[in-house]
Amino acid sequence: MLNDSSKKVKDITSMNEDFARWYTDVVKKAELVDYSIVRGCMVIRPYGYAIWENIQKELDRRFKELGHENVMMPMFIPESLLQKEKDHVEGFAPEVAWVTMGGNEKLQERLCVRPTSETLFCDHYKNVIESYRDLPKLYNQWCSVVRWEKTTRPFLRSLEFLWQEGHTMHETAEEALKETETMLEVYADFFENCLAIPVVRGRKTDKEKFAGAEATYTIEAMMHDGKALQSGTSHYFGDGFAKAFDITFTGRDNKPHFPHQTSWGMSTRVIGAIIMTHGDDNGLVLPPRIAPTQVIIVPVATHKEGVIEKAEELKARLSKDFRVKLDASNNSPGWKYAEYEMKGVPLRLEIGPRDIENNQCVLALRADGSKKIVSLDNLEAEVENALNEIHDILYNKALENRKEKTYSCNNLEEIVKTANEKNGFIKALWCGELACEEELKEKAGITSRCIPFGEEMEDGVCVCCGKKAKNLVYWGKAY
Amino acid sequence: MLNDSSKKVKDITSMNEDFARWYTDVVKKAELVDYSIVRGCMVIRPYGYAIWENIQKELDRRFKELGHENVMMPMFIPESLLQKEKDHVEGFAPEVAWVTMGGNEKLQERLCVRPTSETLFCDHYKNVIESYRDLPKLYNQWCSVVRWEKTTRPFLRSLEFLWQEGHTMHETAEEALKETETMLEVYADFFENCLAIPVVRGRKTDKEKFAGAEATYTIEAMMHDGKALQSGTSHYFGDGFAKAFDITFTGRDNKPHFPHQTSWGMSTRVIGAIIMTHGDDNGLVLPPRIAPTQVIIVPVATHKEGVIEKAEELKARLSKDFRVKLDASNNSPGWKYAEYEMKGVPLRLEIGPRDIENNQCVLALRADGSKKIVSLDNLEAEVENALNEIHDILYNKALENRKEKTYSCNNLEEIVKTANEKNGFIKALWCGELACEEELKEKAGITSRCIPFGEEMEDGVCVCCGKKAKNLVYWGKAY
Repeated sequence: MLNDSSKKVKDITSMNEDFARWYTDVVKKAELVDYSIVRGCMVIRPYGYAIWENIQKELDRRFKELGHENVMMPMFIPESLLQKEKDHVEGFAPEVAWVTMGGNEKLQERLCVRPTSETLFCDHYKNVIESYRDLPKLYNQWCSVVRWEKTTRPFLRSLEFLWQEGHTMHETAEEALKETETMLEVYADFFENCLAIPVVRGRKTDKEKFAGAEATYTIEAMMHDGKALQSGTSHYFGDGFAKAFDITFTGRDNKPHFPHQTSWGMSTRVIGAIIMTHGDDNGLVLPPRIAPTQVIIVPVATHKEGVIEKAEELKARLSKDFRVKLDASNNSPGWKYAEYEMKGVPLRLEIGPRDIENNQCVLALRADGSKKIVSLDNLEAEVENALNEIHDILYNKALENRKEKTYSCNNLEEIVKTANEKNGFIKALWCGELACEEELKEKAGITSRCIPFGEEMEDGVCVCCGKKAKNLVYWGKAY
Repeated sequence: MLNDSSKKVKDITSMNEDFARWYTDVVKKAELVDYSIVRGCMVIRPYGYAIWENIQKELDRRFKELGHENVMMPMFIPESLLQKEKDHVEGFAPEVAWVTMGGNEKLQERLCVRPTSETLFCDHYKNVIESYRDLPKLYNQWCSVVRWEKTTRPFLRSLEFLWQEGHTMHETAEEALKETETMLEVYADFFENCLAIPVVRGRKTDKEKFAGAEATYTIEAMMHDGKALQSGTSHYFGDGFAKAFDITFTGRDNKPHFPHQTSWGMSTRVIGAIIMTHGDDNGLVLPPRIAPTQVIIVPVATHKEGVIEKAEELKARLSKDFRVKLDASNNSPGWKYAEYEMKGVPLRLEIGPRDIENNQCVLALRADGSKKIVSLDNLEAEVENALNEIHDILYNKALENRKEKTYSCNNLEEIVKTANEKNGFIKALWCGELACEEELKEKAGITSRCIPFGEEMEDGVCVCCGKKAKNLVYWGKAY
């Protein structure tokens, strides 16, 4: 398709006209996914998968630096195994796919396709943990999981999605809690420093926490339209699963103990977060640190002698430090500009005969449309600076958007009005009761996103029932 | 477990006593897999998965250098889609797992868990191929697939296994055939130059080829016990699937054409090949280029001043170029030697007080048990040389074993006698008829491994029926 100059690139819906349609248009036009014949499943195309590979590389490096090791569990969970932890099975059983036949035979016991792998990890941990010397176990796996969703959207909610799931076992509760916090911070740091997406770190309410967990920590990002996207979660299980699965270890005191457990996951949803945080009416806008192509070189007046050669020389130079592509095709520069804008390539390098004469080139920043002329002498440093600048522009834009769309409400009337009129984060006090959480869902259509870390709460009353408040909560509509 | 010095490392069955038990002992003792609660599925433990990650890295780099891109297809195939290509469905339908329930609802159409993804790729290619300008499509995916096997063994044959599957579409038959050959050579080169396993390259007979393919190319490796392991295959489909799926493109002549297709795959079976080719009675023996740990540093007399420090210094030095671990635990050197021999670490570096005095260390080669004293001055070069030497030792040993166990037979009596008495490759002429292939299976218990490339065939008669021979064939018992 790239080479066919007769096709228009830019016929996508405007963001402000219809954000949902804009999203699906971008996903298709930027060639990230193709809809699959299998309901609710997606085909991740080369450009989309290359983004995922860069995400994987960054996260995997961070995990390994902290001592985690990758493993692979089976994709199937026997029904009896799924049922071992009561809360867990209640949360997941309604939304799993069941294998009931193998070849031509009916199975004696149904197998579900893993929606998450706590039960499989526990079954394995039982075999390999004997003594405190075997702890901690710091495992992770990269795989796909299946959740039988009714309505689906590429990256945001699909029957099958790719993710990583970390599963760790520890000698003490303190250690496990520390791991839960550490991994949340790894996610937050990745979002802010790799994806240029600011996040609110916090704890989920009991209603919103993971099935079977004692506590769920989350990072919540705000999309361009003001809706929230839960972007990564880290769970503390205490010894609940260990007890259900009878996993014990001999402690330093020579007595049996239950180990303490965590799990944490991040998925291809992240790609949805990137699209909806940074994208605009010209298409995708990729943060430089995970963009498959960081710099696209577009030669101008390619028929003039020496232009293609110079462009190739620059490509060779920059390829040592950056992910660079050169488009030397016969398509017009204008077509190319639109194409790589749609694909969200962070930096465009234009080089033509006059530039060559002047030993310079043009750098065009996708993030804000600005251009600058730079000398070819220290091009590497110029590109490096421009990519960092783009990262900062994107981060600050997103932060600005979040600030604009974060509201404080003090009573039920205010919160209902705000939620009806706008999308955004609503900060409001809460008594801690499920009833109030459910009432806010019903009356204002919002859910609790998290109880934020590191934000001081003033004394006050619950926005819903008026009783003494326990927590400051971020509320919002969510993807 | 590593830290518990009370556990014995080396209680494994001897290879010659019982090769099959030796294999499963090594797989367990070297901590490559754990048996899973799910019948026929395996848990790949950190050490096993680290080997797979190195295999992935090497193969993925080779694929990408040739212009291939990674994608991700759904894991499910609707029954009607699987049935579109007649031969393909006949080959695979009897051995797939069927999802029949999603959540609490019975599905209107069964979904199989992919045993291979030709049908899914074709369904996608139909959407994205319009013109010859869209060709070739050079796609690959890393995923797991499921085949409902009755008897299973870790890595060699399991219900679920990890693999990569390349799927490409081309403008012409010639181009597709060239791709099929190129990818077989990528596999062969990877086996010989990364895994130190010599292979026979060849073509499968019609009986043994992939369901739906016009031709299947294979690399066949010989295990230590003389049995064959089909280690990687590359298929040429012609335009059969394209016709079944109605995939056409507008050619340079402005007329519609069917594209020509290939697929090629390599799986976690490769780890089985490594174990059974290089392993010995002390455990695993890993080829240096994919070993998770290439050098294990074992300090001797750790209580003496300066020993640990020197070991750490060497670790820091070598870690720049190699994958290095230091075991500074309190376990005895003898225990450590046995442990890392079991794990198959290619090179052990011993350093003690006297070595430090003499500015030297000992390098012990896992491949042949030899030791050498080397100066610390150019340790990097010494280690590099030793690792290359180990690669060559392993390759030559395996080649020697294959030569010893390759036989030529001229008539039915000879081939039956040889196959009854020995495992190995049997080279014999064949008329090309299925009946003879089946008779050899029945009478000698052997299957055709391949019609080798690049081996000249002398005139002669079929070893089975005595009619004029068409092909020289490698026969054998296979995993």
